Amino acid sequence: MSARPPIRTVLVVVSDRAAAGTRPDATAALLRPVLAARGFALDEVVVVPDERAEIAAALRARVGAFGLLLTTGGTGVAPRDVTPEATRDVIEKEVPGLTEEIRRRSAERTLKALGSRAVAGTVGTSLVLNLPGRPAGAVEAFEFVAEVVPHLVDLLRGPVPDASHGGGPVA
Amino acid sequence: MSARPPIRTVLVVVSDRAAAGTRPDATAALLRPVLAARGFALDEVVVVPDERAEIAAALRARVGAFGLLLTTGGTGVAPRDVTPEATRDVIEKEVPGLTEEIRRRSAERTLKALGSRAVAGTVGTSLVLNLPGRPAGAVEAFEFVAEVVPHLVDLLRGPVPDASHGGGPVA
Amino acid sequence: MSARPPIRTVLVVVSDRAAAGTRPDATAALLRPVLAARGFALDEVVVVPDERAEIAAALRARVGAFGLLLTTGGTGVAPRDVTPEATRDVIEKEVPGLTEEIRRRSAERTLKALGSRAVAGTVGTSLVLNLPGRPAGAVEAFEFVAEVVPHLVDLLRGPVPDASHGGGPVA
Repeated sequence: MSARPPIRTVLVVVSDRAAAGTRPDATAALLRPVLAARGFALDEVVVVPDERAEIAAALRARVGAFGLLLTTGGTGVAPRDVTPEATRDVIEKEVPGLTEEIRRRSAERTLKALGSRAVAGTVGTSLVLNLPGRPAGAVEAFEFVAEVVPHLVDLLRGPVPDASHGGGPVA
Repeated sequence: MSARPPIRTVLVVVSDRAAAGTRPDATAALLRPVLAARGFALDEVVVVPDERAEIAAALRARVGAFGLLLTTGGTGVAPRDVTPEATRDVIEKEVPGLTEEIRRRSAERTLKALGSRAVAGTVGTSLVLNLPGRPAGAVEAFEFVAEVVPHLVDLLRGPVPDASHGGGPVA
Repeated sequence: MSARPPIRTVLVVVSDRAAAGTRPDATAALLRPVLAARGFALDEVVVVPDERAEIAAALRARVGAFGLLLTTGGTGVAPRDVTPEATRDVIEKEVPGLTEEIRRRSAERTLKALGSRAVAGTVGTSLVLNLPGRPAGAVEAFEFVAEVVPHLVDLLRGPVPDASHGGGPVA
Protein backbone atom coordinates (compact mmCIF):
# COMPACT_ATOMS: atom_id res chain seq x y z
CA MET A 1 0.00 0.00 0.00
CA SER A 2 1.11 3.55 -0.63
CA ALA A 3 1.75 6.12 2.07
CA ARG A 4 -1.64 7.69 1.51
CA PRO A 5 -3.15 9.57 4.42
CA PRO A 6 -5.97 7.74 6.18
CA ILE A 7 -9.42 8.31 4.80
CA ARG A 8 -11.50 10.24 7.30
CA THR A 9 -14.46 8.12 8.38
CA VAL A 10 -17.59 8.74 10.43
CA LEU A 11 -19.82 6.07 11.92
CA VAL A 12 -23.48 6.97 12.29
CA VAL A 13 -25.03 4.54 14.77
CA VAL A 14 -28.76 4.33 14.06
CA SER A 15 -30.50 2.98 17.13
CA ASP A 16 -33.38 4.20 19.24
CA ARG A 17 -31.90 2.51 22.30
CA ALA A 18 -28.40 3.81 21.86
CA ALA A 19 -29.77 7.31 21.20
CA ALA A 20 -31.78 7.12 24.41
CA GLY A 21 -28.64 6.19 26.25
CA THR A 22 -30.01 2.85 27.42
CA ARG A 23 -27.39 0.80 25.66
CA PRO A 24 -23.80 1.58 24.79
CA ASP A 25 -22.84 0.87 21.23
CA ALA A 26 -20.13 -1.71 20.80
CA THR A 27 -19.68 -1.35 17.07
CA ALA A 28 -17.18 1.51 17.00
CA ALA A 29 -14.64 -0.32 19.12
CA LEU A 30 -14.85 -3.37 16.88
CA LEU A 31 -14.78 -1.44 13.62
CA ARG A 32 -11.90 0.92 14.46
CA PRO A 33 -8.99 -1.52 14.04
CA VAL A 34 -10.59 -3.14 11.00
CA LEU A 35 -10.91 0.27 9.38
CA ALA A 36 -7.36 1.26 10.35
CA ALA A 37 -5.95 -1.83 8.67
CA ARG A 38 -7.55 -0.69 5.42
CA GLY A 39 -6.40 2.93 5.64
CA PHE A 40 -9.47 4.48 7.25
CA ALA A 41 -9.41 6.61 10.41
CA LEU A 42 -12.62 6.43 12.44
CA ASP A 43 -12.65 10.07 13.46
CA GLU A 44 -16.22 10.47 14.72
CA VAL A 45 -19.07 8.39 16.06
CA VAL A 46 -22.58 9.83 16.04
CA VAL A 47 -25.66 8.21 17.54
CA VAL A 48 -29.11 9.00 16.16
CA PRO A 49 -32.54 7.42 16.66
CA ASP A 50 -34.36 5.52 13.91
CA GLU A 51 -35.78 8.70 12.42
CA ARG A 52 -35.40 9.28 8.71
CA ALA A 53 -34.85 13.03 8.93
CA GLU A 54 -32.28 12.76 11.71
CA ILE A 55 -30.32 10.04 9.93
CA ALA A 56 -30.29 12.01 6.70
CA ALA A 57 -29.24 15.19 8.50
CA ALA A 58 -26.38 13.40 10.26
CA LEU A 59 -25.10 12.11 6.93
CA ARG A 60 -25.61 15.31 4.98
CA ALA A 61 -23.72 17.41 7.51
CA ARG A 62 -20.61 15.28 7.01
CA VAL A 63 -20.50 14.95 3.22
CA GLY A 64 -17.16 16.13 1.90
CA ALA A 65 -15.54 16.37 5.32
CA PHE A 66 -15.40 12.57 5.48
CA GLY A 67 -14.45 10.28 2.63
CA LEU A 68 -16.39 7.39 4.11
CA LEU A 69 -19.74 7.60 5.91
CA LEU A 70 -20.78 4.33 7.54
CA THR A 71 -24.10 3.64 9.21
CA THR A 72 -25.12 0.71 11.40
CA GLY A 73 -28.65 -0.44 12.07
CA GLY A 74 -32.09 0.28 10.72
CA THR A 75 -31.76 -1.63 7.46
CA GLY A 76 -34.28 -4.40 8.10
CA VAL A 77 -38.02 -4.59 7.58
CA ALA A 78 -39.17 -3.69 11.09
CA PRO A 79 -41.50 -0.70 11.22
CA ARG A 80 -38.81 1.60 12.66
CA ASP A 81 -36.15 0.60 10.08
CA VAL A 82 -35.66 3.60 7.78
CA THR A 83 -31.91 3.86 7.29
CA PRO A 84 -32.06 2.93 3.57
CA GLU A 85 -34.70 5.59 2.92
CA ALA A 86 -32.63 8.21 4.78
CA THR A 87 -29.52 7.18 2.86
CA ARG A 88 -31.31 7.51 -0.48
CA ASP A 89 -32.40 10.98 0.58
CA VAL A 90 -28.72 11.94 0.69
CA ILE A 91 -26.83 10.01 -1.98
CA GLU A 92 -26.57 11.11 -5.59
CA LYS A 93 -25.59 7.79 -7.17
CA GLU A 94 -26.44 4.37 -5.76
CA VAL A 95 -23.70 1.72 -5.98
CA PRO A 96 -25.68 -1.53 -5.80
CA GLY A 97 -22.76 -3.92 -6.11
CA LEU A 98 -21.50 -3.33 -2.59
CA THR A 99 -24.73 -4.31 -0.87
CA GLU A 100 -25.47 -7.11 -3.33
CA GLU A 101 -22.11 -8.63 -2.41
CA ILE A 102 -22.66 -8.15 1.32
CA ARG A 103 -26.07 -9.82 1.15
CA ARG A 104 -24.80 -12.70 -0.95
CA ARG A 105 -21.80 -13.39 1.25
CA SER A 106 -23.77 -12.94 4.48
CA ALA A 107 -26.51 -15.26 3.23
CA GLU A 108 -23.98 -18.06 3.02
CA ARG A 109 -24.07 -18.03 6.85
CA THR A 110 -27.72 -17.16 7.44
CA LEU A 111 -30.52 -16.54 4.98
CA LYS A 112 -31.81 -13.87 7.39
CA ALA A 113 -29.26 -11.59 5.73
CA LEU A 114 -31.55 -11.48 2.70
CA GLY A 115 -33.85 -9.22 4.69
CA SER A 116 -31.27 -6.44 4.67
CA ARG A 117 -32.28 -3.43 2.59
CA ALA A 118 -28.86 -1.80 3.04
CA VAL A 119 -27.78 0.62 0.33
CA ALA A 120 -24.51 2.21 -0.69
CA GLY A 121 -23.94 5.27 -2.76
CA THR A 122 -21.93 8.35 -3.44
CA VAL A 123 -22.54 12.01 -2.76
CA GLY A 124 -19.93 14.57 -3.73
CA THR A 125 -16.58 13.10 -2.77
CA SER A 126 -18.03 10.83 -0.07
CA LEU A 127 -19.02 7.18 -0.12
CA VAL A 128 -21.94 6.11 2.10
CA LEU A 129 -22.42 2.50 3.14
CA ASN A 130 -25.12 0.96 5.35
CA LEU A 131 -23.99 -1.85 7.66
CA PRO A 132 -26.05 -4.15 9.91
CA GLY A 133 -26.85 -3.19 13.47
CA ARG A 134 -25.23 -6.11 15.24
CA PRO A 135 -21.58 -5.16 15.95
CA ALA A 136 -20.11 -8.44 14.71
CA GLY A 137 -22.34 -8.33 11.66
CA ALA A 138 -21.26 -4.79 10.86
CA VAL A 139 -17.60 -5.73 10.94
CA GLU A 140 -18.17 -8.81 8.82
CA ALA A 141 -20.18 -6.90 6.26
CA PHE A 142 -17.54 -4.20 5.94
CA GLU A 143 -14.83 -6.78 5.46
CA PHE A 144 -16.70 -8.38 2.57
CA VAL A 145 -16.16 -5.22 0.51
CA ALA A 146 -13.28 -3.47 2.33
CA GLU A 147 -10.82 -4.17 -0.46
CA VAL A 148 -12.69 -2.05 -2.96
CA VAL A 149 -13.71 0.88 -0.73
CA PRO A 150 -10.45 2.90 -0.91
CA HIS A 151 -10.51 2.52 -4.68
CA LEU A 152 -14.01 3.95 -4.85
CA VAL A 153 -13.13 6.90 -2.62
CA ASP A 154 -10.17 7.63 -4.89
CA LEU A 155 -12.42 7.70 -7.95
CA LEU A 156 -14.80 10.10 -6.24
CA ARG A 157 -11.99 12.51 -5.66
CA GLY A 158 -11.23 12.67 -9.41
CA PRO A 159 -10.51 14.17 -11.82
CA VAL A 160 -9.18 11.03 -13.38
CA PRO A 161 -10.57 11.78 -16.80
CA ASP A 162 -11.88 8.79 -18.69
CA ALA A 163 -10.07 6.42 -16.35
CA SER A 164 -12.44 3.63 -17.22
CA HIS A 165 -10.71 3.36 -20.59
CA GLY A 166 -7.38 2.48 -19.07
CA GLY A 167 -5.62 5.79 -19.47
CA GLY A 168 -5.62 6.75 -15.80
CA PRO A 169 -4.27 5.25 -12.64
CA VAL A 170 -7.05 2.69 -12.48
CA ALA A 171 -5.69 -0.64 -13.64
CA MET B 1 -40.58 -24.97 15.26
CA SER B 2 -42.86 -23.26 17.73
CA ALA B 3 -46.60 -23.80 17.87
CA ARG B 4 -47.22 -20.54 16.05
CA PRO B 5 -50.45 -20.27 14.09
CA PRO B 6 -50.06 -20.57 10.33
CA ILE B 7 -49.39 -17.35 8.47
CA ARG B 8 -52.36 -16.49 6.31
CA THR B 9 -51.31 -16.44 2.67
CA VAL B 10 -52.94 -15.39 -0.59
CA LEU B 11 -51.79 -16.34 -4.07
CA VAL B 12 -52.50 -13.83 -6.83
CA VAL B 13 -52.21 -15.64 -10.14
CA VAL B 14 -51.40 -13.07 -12.83
CA SER B 15 -52.31 -14.51 -16.21
CA ASP B 16 -54.45 -13.30 -19.07
CA ARG B 17 -55.28 -16.89 -20.02
CA ALA B 18 -56.17 -18.05 -16.54
CA ALA B 19 -58.27 -14.93 -16.01
CA ALA B 20 -60.14 -15.66 -19.25
CA GLY B 21 -60.80 -19.15 -17.99
CA THR B 22 -59.01 -20.82 -20.87
CA ARG B 23 -56.47 -22.54 -18.69
CA PRO B 24 -56.68 -23.78 -15.14
CA ASP B 25 -53.85 -22.69 -12.90
CA ALA B 26 -51.76 -25.51 -11.50
CA THR B 27 -49.61 -23.44 -9.18
CA ALA B 28 -51.85 -23.35 -6.13
CA ALA B 29 -52.01 -27.12 -5.82
CA LEU B 30 -48.22 -27.37 -6.03
CA LEU B 31 -47.56 -24.49 -3.65
CA ARG B 32 -50.04 -25.42 -0.94
CA PRO B 33 -48.08 -28.29 0.68
CA VAL B 34 -44.78 -26.45 0.30
CA LEU B 35 -46.27 -23.47 2.09
CA ALA B 36 -47.84 -25.63 4.79
CA ALA B 37 -44.50 -27.24 5.60
CA ARG B 38 -43.13 -23.75 6.34
CA GLY B 39 -46.05 -22.60 8.47
CA PHE B 40 -48.12 -20.81 5.83
CA ALA B 41 -51.78 -21.51 5.11
CA LEU B 42 -52.81 -20.82 1.52
CA ASP B 43 -56.22 -19.40 2.33
CA GLU B 44 -57.13 -17.73 -0.95
CA VAL B 45 -56.28 -17.90 -4.63
CA VAL B 46 -57.17 -14.98 -6.88
CA VAL B 47 -56.77 -14.84 -10.64
CA VAL B 48 -56.25 -11.52 -12.42
CA PRO B 49 -55.23 -10.58 -15.96
CA ASP B 50 -51.89 -8.92 -16.75
CA GLU B 51 -53.22 -5.47 -15.98
CA ARG B 52 -51.23 -3.25 -13.65
CA ALA B 53 -54.24 -1.65 -11.94
CA GLU B 54 -56.01 -4.96 -11.38
CA ILE B 55 -52.90 -6.62 -9.95
CA ALA B 56 -52.26 -3.71 -7.63
CA ALA B 57 -55.90 -3.65 -6.50
CA ALA B 58 -55.87 -7.38 -5.76
CA LEU B 59 -52.78 -6.95 -3.60
CA ARG B 60 -53.87 -3.77 -1.87
CA ALA B 61 -57.22 -5.22 -0.84
CA ARG B 62 -55.46 -8.01 1.08
CA VAL B 63 -52.73 -6.06 2.90
CA GLY B 64 -52.93 -6.68 6.62
CA ALA B 65 -55.45 -9.51 6.33
CA PHE B 66 -52.72 -11.77 4.97
CA GLY B 67 -49.17 -11.95 6.27
CA LEU B 68 -47.84 -13.20 2.94
CA LEU B 69 -49.00 -12.10 -0.50
CA LEU B 70 -47.55 -14.17 -3.32
CA THR B 71 -47.95 -13.49 -7.02
CA THR B 72 -47.13 -15.73 -9.96
CA GLY B 73 -46.51 -14.59 -13.52
CA GLY B 74 -45.97 -11.32 -15.32
CA THR B 75 -42.40 -10.69 -14.16
CA GLY B 76 -40.59 -11.03 -17.49
CA VAL B 77 -39.90 -8.55 -20.27
CA ALA B 78 -42.81 -9.38 -22.57
CA PRO B 79 -45.02 -6.39 -23.37
CA ARG B 80 -47.84 -7.60 -21.10
CA ASP B 81 -45.54 -8.29 -18.10
CA VAL B 82 -46.34 -5.64 -15.49
CA THR B 83 -46.43 -7.50 -12.18
CA PRO B 84 -43.27 -5.78 -10.83
CA GLU B 85 -44.70 -2.34 -11.62
CA ALA B 86 -48.00 -3.23 -9.93
CA THR B 87 -46.15 -4.59 -6.90
CA ARG B 88 -44.10 -1.41 -6.57
CA ASP B 89 -47.36 0.55 -6.68
CA VAL B 90 -48.36 -1.23 -3.47
CA ILE B 91 -45.25 -1.90 -1.37
CA GLU B 92 -43.72 0.62 1.01
CA LYS B 93 -40.23 -0.90 1.33
CA GLU B 94 -38.53 -3.04 -1.28
CA VAL B 95 -36.55 -6.04 0.00
CA PRO B 96 -34.12 -6.73 -2.85
CA GLY B 97 -32.28 -9.65 -1.25
CA LEU B 98 -35.10 -12.13 -1.77
CA THR B 99 -35.32 -11.66 -5.52
CA GLU B 100 -31.55 -11.33 -5.94
CA GLU B 101 -31.20 -14.74 -4.29
CA ILE B 102 -33.98 -16.29 -6.36
CA ARG B 103 -32.43 -15.01 -9.60
CA ARG B 104 -28.95 -16.16 -8.64
CA ARG B 105 -30.04 -19.63 -7.59
CA SER B 106 -32.38 -20.02 -10.56
CA ALA B 107 -29.66 -18.92 -12.97
CA GLU B 108 -27.56 -21.87 -11.89
CA ARG B 109 -30.08 -23.98 -13.83
CA THR B 110 -30.92 -21.62 -16.67
CA LEU B 111 -29.63 -18.16 -17.46
CA LYS B 112 -33.13 -17.30 -18.67
CA ALA B 113 -33.91 -16.65 -15.02
CA LEU B 114 -31.87 -13.45 -15.30
CA GLY B 115 -34.75 -11.95 -17.26
CA SER B 116 -36.97 -12.01 -14.20
CA ARG B 117 -37.83 -8.55 -12.87
CA ALA B 118 -39.52 -10.00 -9.77
CA VAL B 119 -39.63 -7.79 -6.71
CA ALA B 120 -40.34 -8.33 -3.03
CA GLY B 121 -41.32 -5.80 -0.45
CA THR B 122 -43.32 -4.95 2.60
CA VAL B 123 -46.47 -2.96 3.15
CA GLY B 124 -47.91 -2.61 6.62
CA THR B 125 -47.64 -6.03 8.26
CA SER B 126 -47.61 -7.93 4.96
CA LEU B 127 -44.77 -9.29 2.86
CA VAL B 128 -45.25 -9.36 -0.93
CA LEU B 129 -43.19 -11.66 -3.16
CA ASN B 130 -43.35 -12.11 -6.93
CA LEU B 131 -42.80 -15.67 -8.20
CA PRO B 132 -42.44 -16.96 -11.76
CA GLY B 133 -45.47 -18.00 -13.80
CA ARG B 134 -44.53 -21.61 -14.43
CA PRO B 135 -45.90 -23.70 -11.55
CA ALA B 136 -42.70 -25.68 -10.98
CA GLY B 137 -40.66 -22.51 -11.23
CA ALA B 138 -42.85 -20.77 -8.68
CA VAL B 139 -42.40 -23.58 -6.16
CA GLU B 140 -38.65 -23.69 -6.74
CA ALA B 141 -38.29 -19.92 -6.36
CA PHE B 142 -40.27 -19.88 -3.12
CA GLU B 143 -38.17 -22.69 -1.69
CA PHE B 144 -34.95 -20.74 -2.34
CA VAL B 145 -36.01 -18.18 0.26
CA ALA B 146 -38.69 -20.02 2.28
CA GLU B 147 -36.47 -20.31 5.34
CA VAL B 148 -36.33 -16.54 5.85
CA VAL B 149 -39.93 -15.62 5.03
CA PRO B 150 -41.52 -16.40 8.45
CA HIS B 151 -38.74 -14.40 10.11
CA LEU B 152 -39.52 -11.38 7.94
CA VAL B 153 -43.25 -11.59 8.63
CA ASP B 154 -42.48 -11.71 12.36
CA LEU B 155 -40.41 -8.54 12.10
CA LEU B 156 -43.19 -6.74 10.26
CA ARG B 157 -45.56 -7.50 13.08
CA GLY B 158 -43.30 -5.73 15.59
CA PRO B 159 -42.91 -4.02 17.90
CA VAL B 160 -39.58 -5.63 18.53
CA PRO B 161 -37.83 -2.39 19.39
CA ASP B 162 -34.26 -2.16 18.17
CA ALA B 163 -34.13 -5.90 17.56
CA SER B 164 -31.31 -5.49 15.08
CA HIS B 165 -29.02 -4.71 17.99
CA GLY B 166 -29.50 -8.10 19.57
CA GLY B 167 -31.83 -7.18 22.37
CA GLY B 168 -34.97 -8.76 20.96
CA PRO B 169 -36.01 -12.25 20.00
CA VAL B 170 -34.06 -12.06 16.75
CA ALA B 171 -30.87 -14.05 17.11
CA MET C 1 -29.96 -22.53 -33.34
CA SER C 2 -32.56 -21.58 -35.90
CA ALA C 3 -31.83 -19.69 -39.09
CA ARG C 4 -32.98 -16.45 -37.51
CA PRO C 5 -31.69 -13.23 -39.05
CA PRO C 6 -29.01 -11.48 -37.02
CA ILE C 7 -30.24 -9.07 -34.38
CA ARG C 8 -29.31 -5.53 -35.36
CA THR C 9 -27.00 -4.06 -32.73
CA VAL C 10 -25.57 -0.63 -32.03
CA LEU C 11 -22.63 0.14 -29.76
CA VAL C 12 -22.67 3.53 -28.06
CA VAL C 13 -19.15 4.28 -26.86
CA VAL C 14 -19.37 6.70 -23.94
CA SER C 15 -16.01 8.42 -23.54
CA ASP C 16 -14.93 12.02 -23.38
CA ARG C 17 -11.58 11.13 -24.90
CA ALA C 18 -12.93 9.02 -27.73
CA ALA C 19 -15.50 11.73 -28.50
CA ALA C 20 -12.72 14.31 -28.65
CA GLY C 21 -10.88 12.13 -31.09
CA THR C 22 -7.84 11.76 -28.86
CA ARG C 23 -8.13 8.02 -28.55
CA PRO C 24 -9.52 5.43 -30.92
CA ASP C 25 -11.95 2.99 -29.41
CA ALA C 26 -10.87 -0.62 -29.48
CA THR C 27 -14.06 -2.13 -28.15
CA ALA C 28 -16.00 -2.47 -31.38
CA ALA C 29 -13.36 -4.61 -33.05
CA LEU C 30 -13.25 -6.94 -30.06
CA LEU C 31 -17.02 -7.14 -29.63
CA ARG C 32 -17.95 -7.69 -33.27
CA PRO C 33 -16.97 -11.37 -33.58
CA VAL C 34 -18.29 -12.17 -30.10
CA LEU C 35 -21.63 -10.66 -31.05
CA ALA C 36 -21.68 -12.43 -34.43
CA ALA C 37 -21.19 -15.80 -32.77
CA ARG C 38 -24.37 -15.16 -30.77
CA GLY C 39 -26.48 -13.98 -33.69
CA PHE C 40 -25.97 -10.23 -33.36
CA ALA C 41 -24.78 -7.95 -36.17
CA LEU C 42 -22.87 -4.89 -34.97
CA ASP C 43 -24.29 -2.50 -37.54
CA GLU C 44 -23.33 0.86 -36.04
CA VAL C 45 -20.82 2.36 -33.62
CA VAL C 46 -21.51 5.79 -32.13
CA VAL C 47 -19.17 7.78 -29.92
CA VAL C 48 -20.53 10.28 -27.41
CA PRO C 49 -18.99 12.21 -24.53
CA ASP C 50 -19.88 11.52 -20.88
CA GLU C 51 -22.92 13.78 -21.04
CA ARG C 52 -26.23 12.44 -19.81
CA ALA C 53 -28.38 14.16 -22.41
CA GLU C 54 -26.15 13.11 -25.31
CA ILE C 55 -26.01 9.50 -24.18
CA ALA C 56 -29.78 9.37 -23.74
CA ALA C 57 -30.36 10.97 -27.14
CA ALA C 58 -28.03 8.49 -28.84
CA LEU C 59 -29.95 5.59 -27.31
CA ARG C 60 -33.42 7.01 -27.86
CA ALA C 61 -32.80 7.68 -31.55
CA ARG C 62 -32.08 3.98 -32.11
CA VAL C 63 -34.89 2.33 -30.14
CA GLY C 64 -36.84 -0.03 -32.36
CA ALA C 65 -34.40 0.13 -35.24
CA PHE C 66 -31.95 -1.99 -33.25
CA GLY C 67 -32.87 -5.00 -31.16
CA LEU C 68 -29.81 -4.57 -28.93
CA LEU C 69 -28.31 -1.29 -27.75
CA LEU C 70 -24.98 -1.69 -25.99
CA THR C 71 -23.04 1.04 -24.24
CA THR C 72 -19.48 1.01 -22.97
CA GLY C 73 -18.03 3.30 -20.32
CA GLY C 74 -19.34 5.78 -17.80
CA THR C 75 -20.78 3.28 -15.33
CA GLY C 76 -18.43 3.90 -12.39
CA VAL C 77 -18.51 6.42 -9.57
CA ALA C 78 -16.23 9.08 -11.04
CA PRO C 79 -17.82 12.51 -11.31
CA ARG C 80 -18.25 12.26 -15.08
CA ASP C 81 -19.82 8.78 -15.00
CA VAL C 82 -23.48 9.20 -15.93
CA THR C 83 -24.25 6.34 -18.30
CA PRO C 84 -26.61 4.57 -15.83
CA GLU C 85 -28.59 7.77 -15.32
CA ALA C 86 -28.85 8.34 -19.07
CA THR C 87 -29.92 4.74 -19.59
CA ARG C 88 -32.65 5.02 -16.97
CA ASP C 89 -33.87 8.14 -18.76
CA VAL C 90 -34.58 5.94 -21.78
CA ILE C 91 -35.63 2.48 -20.61
CA GLU C 92 -39.18 1.55 -19.63
CA LYS C 93 -38.44 -1.59 -17.59
CA GLU C 94 -35.20 -2.29 -15.77
CA VAL C 95 -33.91 -5.88 -15.93
CA PRO C 96 -31.66 -6.11 -12.86
CA GLY C 97 -30.62 -9.75 -13.25
CA LEU C 98 -28.26 -9.07 -16.15
CA THR C 99 -26.12 -6.55 -14.33
CA GLU C 100 -26.32 -8.42 -11.01
CA GLU C 101 -24.86 -11.44 -12.80
CA ILE C 102 -22.16 -9.40 -14.55
CA ARG C 103 -21.08 -7.80 -11.26
CA ARG C 104 -21.06 -11.11 -9.42
CA ARG C 105 -19.07 -12.94 -12.07
CA SER C 106 -16.69 -10.02 -12.61
CA ALA C 107 -16.09 -9.68 -8.86
CA GLU C 108 -14.71 -13.20 -8.82
CA ARG C 109 -11.69 -11.70 -10.65
CA THR C 110 -11.56 -8.26 -9.05
CA LEU C 111 -13.73 -6.71 -6.36
CA LYS C 112 -13.38 -3.41 -8.22
CA ALA C 113 -16.21 -4.69 -10.39
CA LEU C 114 -18.54 -4.01 -7.45
CA GLY C 115 -18.22 -0.31 -8.23
CA SER C 116 -20.08 -0.73 -11.50
CA ARG C 117 -23.49 0.90 -11.56
CA ALA C 118 -24.33 -0.62 -14.95
CA VAL C 119 -28.01 -1.11 -15.72
CA ALA C 120 -29.97 -3.07 -18.29
CA GLY C 121 -33.51 -2.59 -19.39
CA THR C 122 -36.05 -2.65 -22.15
CA VAL C 123 -37.72 0.05 -24.17
CA GLY C 124 -40.19 -0.88 -26.88
CA THR C 125 -38.73 -3.85 -28.72
CA SER C 126 -35.12 -3.00 -27.78
CA LEU C 127 -32.87 -4.27 -25.01
CA VAL C 128 -30.29 -1.84 -23.58
CA LEU C 129 -27.24 -3.08 -21.70
CA ASN C 130 -24.40 -1.07 -20.14
CA LEU C 131 -20.93 -2.61 -20.38
CA PRO C 132 -17.63 -1.50 -18.83
CA GLY C 133 -15.35 0.95 -20.60
CA ARG C 134 -12.28 -1.24 -20.88
CA PRO C 135 -12.50 -3.18 -24.13
CA ALA C 136 -11.57 -6.55 -22.63
CA GLY C 137 -13.91 -5.93 -19.72
CA ALA C 138 -16.76 -5.10 -22.06
CA VAL C 139 -16.34 -8.34 -23.98
CA GLU C 140 -16.09 -10.36 -20.79
CA ALA C 141 -19.18 -8.75 -19.29
CA PHE C 142 -21.23 -9.37 -22.43
CA GLU C 143 -20.18 -13.00 -22.51
CA PHE C 144 -21.40 -13.55 -18.93
CA VAL C 145 -24.98 -12.97 -20.09
CA ALA C 146 -24.78 -13.51 -23.88
CA GLU C 147 -26.69 -16.77 -23.74
CA VAL C 148 -29.86 -15.11 -22.49
CA VAL C 149 -29.82 -11.95 -24.60
CA PRO C 150 -31.38 -13.36 -27.80
CA HIS C 151 -34.12 -14.91 -25.68
CA LEU C 152 -34.93 -11.55 -24.12
CA VAL C 153 -35.02 -9.78 -27.48
CA ASP C 154 -37.44 -12.44 -28.74
CA LEU C 155 -39.76 -11.84 -25.80
CA LEU C 156 -39.74 -8.11 -26.45
CA ARG C 157 -40.94 -8.70 -29.95
CA GLY C 158 -44.02 -10.55 -28.70
CA PRO C 159 -46.89 -11.13 -28.83
CA VAL C 160 -46.27 -14.43 -27.12
CA PRO C 161 -49.37 -14.27 -24.97
CA ASP C 162 -48.94 -15.66 -21.50
CA ALA C 163 -45.75 -17.46 -22.50
CA SER C 164 -44.62 -17.52 -18.90
CA HIS C 165 -47.20 -20.20 -18.26
CA GLY C 166 -45.64 -22.60 -20.70
CA GLY C 167 -48.04 -22.22 -23.58
CA GLY C 168 -45.73 -20.33 -25.92
CA PRO C 169 -42.35 -21.02 -27.46
CA VAL C 170 -40.55 -20.23 -24.22
CA ALA C 171 -39.52 -23.48 -22.61
